[in-house]
Amino acid sequence: MPQESDPDTIRILVSTDNHVGFEERDPIRKDDSWRTFDEVMQLAQTRDVDMVLLAGDLFHDNRPSRKAMYQVMRSLRKNCLGMKPCELEFLSDPAEVFEGAFPHVNYQDPDINISIPVFSIHGNHDDPSGDGHYCSLDLLQVAGLVNYFGRVPEADNIHVKPILLQKGKTKLALYGISNVRDERMHRTFRDNKVRFYRPSQQKSDFFNLLALHQNHYAHTATSYLPENMLPDFLDLVIWGHEHECLIDPQRNPETGFHVMQPGSSVATSLVPGEAVTKHVAILSITGKTFEVEKIPLKTVRPFVTREITLANDKRFKGLEKKQDNRQDITKRLMLIVEEMIEEANAKWRSLHGDEIDEDEGQPLPLIRLKVEYTAPEGTKYEVENPQRFSNRFAGKVANQNDVVYFYRKKTTATRKIKAELPAGVSEALDSTDALKVDTLVQEFFAQQSLKILPQAPFGDAVHQFVSKDDKYAVELFVMDSLSTQVKGLLQLDDEKISEGLDAHIDDFRKNMEKNFVSGQLKQAQRKRRFKEKPDGWDSDREGHWTAQPQAVEEVPASPGPGAGNGRSDDDGMSVDEPIAQAASTRRSATSSRATRGTTAAKKAAPAAKKVTAARKAPARGRKKAGPFEDDEDDDVIMDDDEMDPPRPPPPKAPPARATRSSAPKTRQTTLSFSQKPKTSQKAIEISDDEISEDDAFESMPATRRRRK
Amino acid sequence: MPQESDPDTIRILVSTDNHVGFEERDPIRKDDSWRTFDEVMQLAQTRDVDMVLLAGDLFHDNRPSRKAMYQVMRSLRKNCLGMKPCELEFLSDPAEVFEGAFPHVNYQDPDINISIPVFSIHGNHDDPSGDGHYCSLDLLQVAGLVNYFGRVPEADNIHVKPILLQKGKTKLALYGISNVRDERMHRTFRDNKVRFYRPSQQKSDFFNLLALHQNHYAHTATSYLPENMLPDFLDLVIWGHEHECLIDPQRNPETGFHVMQPGSSVATSLVPGEAVTKHVAILSITGKTFEVEKIPLKTVRPFVTREITLANDKRFKGLEKKQDNRQDITKRLMLIVEEMIEEANAKWRSLHGDEIDEDEGQPLPLIRLKVEYTAPEGTKYEVENPQRFSNRFAGKVANQNDVVYFYRKKTTATRKIKAELPAGVSEALDSTDALKVDTLVQEFFAQQSLKILPQAPFGDAVHQFVSKDDKYAVELFVMDSLSTQVKGLLQLDDEKISEGLDAHIDDFRKNMEKNFVSGQLKQAQRKRRFKEKPDGWDSDREGHWTAQPQAVEEVPASPGPGAGNGRSDDDGMSVDEPIAQAASTRRSATSSRATRGTTAAKKAAPAAKKVTAARKAPARGRKKAGPFEDDEDDDVIMDDDEMDPPRPPPPKAPPARATRSSAPKTRQTTLSFSQKPKTSQKAIEISDDEISEDDAFESMPATRRRRK
Repeated sequence: MPQESDPDTIRILVSTDNHVGFEERDPIRKDDSWRTFDEVMQLAQTRDVDMVLLAGDLFHDNRPSRKAMYQVMRSLRKNCLGMKPCELEFLSDPAEVFEGAFPHVNYQDPDINISIPVFSIHGNHDDPSGDGHYCSLDLLQVAGLVNYFGRVPEADNIHVKPILLQKGKTKLALYGISNVRDERMHRTFRDNKVRFYRPSQQKSDFFNLLALHQNHYAHTATSYLPENMLPDFLDLVIWGHEHECLIDPQRNPETGFHVMQPGSSVATSLVPGEAVTKHVAILSITGKTFEVEKIPLKTVRPFVTREITLANDKRFKGLEKKQDNRQDITKRLMLIVEEMIEEANAKWRSLHGDEIDEDEGQPLPLIRLKVEYTAPEGTKYEVENPQRFSNRFAGKVANQNDVVYFYRKKTTATRKIKAELPAGVSEALDSTDALKVDTLVQEFFAQQSLKILPQAPFGDAVHQFVSKDDKYAVELFVMDSLSTQVKGLLQLDDEKISEGLDAHIDDFRKNMEKNFVSGQLKQAQRKRRFKEKPDGWDSDREGHWTAQPQAVEEVPASPGPGAGNGRSDDDGMSVDEPIAQAASTRRSATSSRATRGTTAAKKAAPAAKKVTAARKAPARGRKKAGPFEDDEDDDVIMDDDEMDPPRPPPPKAPPARATRSSAPKTRQTTLSFSQKPKTSQKAIEISDDEISEDDAFESMPATRRRRK
Repeated sequence: MPQESDPDTIRILVSTDNHVGFEERDPIRKDDSWRTFDEVMQLAQTRDVDMVLLAGDLFHDNRPSRKAMYQVMRSLRKNCLGMKPCELEFLSDPAEVFEGAFPHVNYQDPDINISIPVFSIHGNHDDPSGDGHYCSLDLLQVAGLVNYFGRVPEADNIHVKPILLQKGKTKLALYGISNVRDERMHRTFRDNKVRFYRPSQQKSDFFNLLALHQNHYAHTATSYLPENMLPDFLDLVIWGHEHECLIDPQRNPETGFHVMQPGSSVATSLVPGEAVTKHVAILSITGKTFEVEKIPLKTVRPFVTREITLANDKRFKGLEKKQDNRQDITKRLMLIVEEMIEEANAKWRSLHGDEIDEDEGQPLPLIRLKVEYTAPEGTKYEVENPQRFSNRFAGKVANQNDVVYFYRKKTTATRKIKAELPAGVSEALDSTDALKVDTLVQEFFAQQSLKILPQAPFGDAVHQFVSKDDKYAVELFVMDSLSTQVKGLLQLDDEKISEGLDAHIDDFRKNMEKNFVSGQLKQAQRKRRFKEKPDGWDSDREGHWTAQPQAVEEVPASPGPGAGNGRSDDDGMSVDEPIAQAASTRRSATSSRATRGTTAAKKAAPAAKKVTAARKAPARGRKKAGPFEDDEDDDVIMDDDEMDPPRPPPPKAPPARATRSSAPKTRQTTLSFSQKPKTSQKAIEISDDEISEDDAFESMPATRRRRK
């Protein structure tokens, strides 16, 4: 490992998914999350790193409790502040990479002494929401405790500008992309709407590090971010969101970069991935090379999980034929759990050695035994009530209510029932998360009826209320729906009014519902017909994707340490190359914001086969004469000498079928309250968005946030 | 005025009740609260004061929105931080006056450069609540932005220790008492359970300044804090909570101290008191003298209010006899409103002179016209729907929904109806605040019935949920009630079980309700019989109050500037005199915390007639050898030479009647979840507490908060 004092090595403590606040009301586990976050921050101090990098979900709750916020602020202030100056030179124009009232890196603030700056993107748990679109990281940033970067003001048009840092001869370009719902992120990448910017000078000297927070693995074909959608010029990707600790960087042979998945620092579910020993890493970057030291976290509550199948397990052999076998099964399962508890305790002891605090003792472990008890035809395994079984271990485990999980293989009958359910409901039921709020609302309305408010969008509002703790979501929904109703009624002519208003009120409501459902239907159809590619499909809306198998083009990272000369001090290093992700769409000169979710611009885009190697776009007024040249024409700007040969398209992203819906061409009411209707766009534009729980609200910040 | 640079003058910007977040979702007024708070903080910077003193309700919501919190942090960081060192010497032991993870004054933190420290107590809006008992000021303190002082860990036993500051020859003892519900605060003062501590050296040199946040005026006899309950040694009291700006200090001839009531910086209700021009003050203290410069706040939206009575107003003369007089009345009222709008605009112009920003223009004013339209017998005034009338001024006023308030004098009939309502309900209906949550719950349950949960305490839980935004209040209540039920059921013997459980469940529930109601009844009885003093009353629980007409004893402030010698640097000045408020109760040696809400200790207290002038208590182990001698024996420690002659008791606090209830002697279930039952105390102990909405939760911090 490089020495701590190596003047040319940038040492970064990497952690992610700290989920501070998780189970903070559990009598046993309540302090787990912040205790471990504090351990992480103390490590930063004792190991004297140059900076800390967090890859999202610092908080578990979108609106953390005061206690959780207090604990995080406390740990940050205790460990990040100090007299030792941070040795990192800041080369970017801070206004390009930070937002808010104090758009500069905290360690350059003249009034706060930061020794160890923390850089963080947001995750799906602590994303911006509510009035003004603030998130918890905004509060930490305005307090000077965190540098919140990698904001995504527009989920459909992402500009990734790096923070440029230098220590001695090592130059670091730190990229961040905060969480965007996976389906949407996938689409934005697929649509070449993610642009990476690179420094204009000594580009090849920079070590390129990216932090992101997305699904790493394919749940469905489009609900994750395939590694090979990311540009090759990257050297290392810190992958947040996945909780399994895979701290050793894995090289992706296709892209050439490494990927490190640090995992969460607290187990938020009792699955095997969370049982992997939790680590953080000290990443040491020297020139273009890096090394990783992994550090096991000692405060993490030990967790052991096992899966058994009674029918295949010799310890349960023959029991299925016995009458009243429940007691026998319970006894044998208890032995297994006892073994697991001992294993967990041994794990703790081996990690702590002599350091175990006599007063505190060992923490109670988390234990999860997953038991399949499908019995052979004509026999039966009788299992105890799972909670009662679990309660037998009160005082010995931290999760005394869910030690055991019993399940049987689905029978043909249940499978059939599920097949008959609408896709959405079935998925909600399948979900390992709690039952989706939307489904509950749907069930509720199946037995009720509303006269004025549309029912389907109600689910959205309730979801926002519940999962984002947004007190006003329902109020806004009601206000908006009512105003649509009133506007509609006011436009009725005398003749219609004489027919009576009730029928019209009903019509408007149904219309709002229809629009909402049609948006969802289109999405569902697209998903289901994912692999079909019928002849003569009638839309080019997503055509350029298939037309360009070599869509993703990146500038490969140039290996080798960079020369240390030529950097500019303080006034911001110039960065002038937006690396478009297959930026083949030449859009018209309308604002890129205005084209969100529209097809008009895409229709104009030729299906370019090859990325152009030089600027073709006419010069257009630049917004800002900053170090980043934000070329809004989406023309591809590449260095010829760094072009890679074309690559095959990312796997599992075949052409989607574009569908034309017969739905009325009006906008969805519930989505309109912060978006001005674009009269020149047809209704179908909305269908390009895959409507889901919070999708509709994601693009608001651009219009709603007004900060000073 | 003293010069800004006077080396012997401490200059304090005084503001209070900033209510940041008030109406933050109103389309017009949303930025009002933080805009003015920012003006206040900017004034602190431009006027280069030594410190800022806030007297509570910095935030409007107990759980402020992220936006509100962001705005406050932003204003503090922008204006309080800087390179200029704060010139105040800090003489106290910080651990005696601050709590939390960073128990020191923020301007002495080596890692944050504070030029202008902000000191704040909490108000009733931003008081600690929820798990861990944190409040918003805790977050600002842990961020290093505010010095939160004057905490009240025990509302029934208040120790007021000053922050001792010095600049040149001027010494300041800054006292703070954060808000406690008024009835309770009144009782704590009345019971001599508020103790003020004074410096042990140069006591008479200190200027004694107190910030508090309580009702200033008598709503009921015990729901406010009479000025003369405060000790005479004070020089100036900054009175928060009351929103009317009475910035010029008023001398209380009885106590000798001055009182300044700065008022709110944003109008939160449309009453005349809020229409008084809002000011902050720069308080300049030199030695034992002070001067006040009042500064009108320029960002405050102009507000004009008037009250008229149609029957007495010549502009409406004769209209009552006219048929269909509504249109005429409306027209004339509109003229009055137009006048008021012009008056408001003129007010703004006169305050701003030439400074009016052409781009921003004048803000829309707040207008409130209160109209009594009681008509003479046999005639009638017809008034328009108030909202419709108000809407006529859309675009001209900021409050387009409530410009007018119509009311008639109560008829005998309505008075009679109200007299028949239970006292609580009637009060709730009378309240100028929104209808009390408790009443609504009560009404709801009048039509429902619950089998297991007790109904009355449900109101408490719902109140906590609604007004303190405590998501878990209801959950805790349910858990607790259920566990009481289960415990009860488990204790049943076989015979009782054979009778069936339903009846017992019902009994347990009724018992819980009875306990709760009996607690409230006692309170109500005490209130209603306030002035009665029947012969031979059977309790000495509150006896010492009447037995001691000279209960309140204070050390009067010694006027004249103090000599500047003899102060100790840095290591904390010694403060050794707890000035007990008629501390006549000699309690037994049990911990003072353990006696909260008990009567046992009080029964042992002799009804001392006169405050003792010397220590009588046996020496007991002191908790801490700090500069404050916290004498837990409650004996009075006074300097003989500074004794005042006995004073008459505070007005409006006649002896309360102690009642013995026949309620069962079990604890209230809903209050028990964080308090370990004290087996040695009888049930009646809880009845000494005046149970009300949030009373039950107030004393938790002592047992619940565990901070590191």
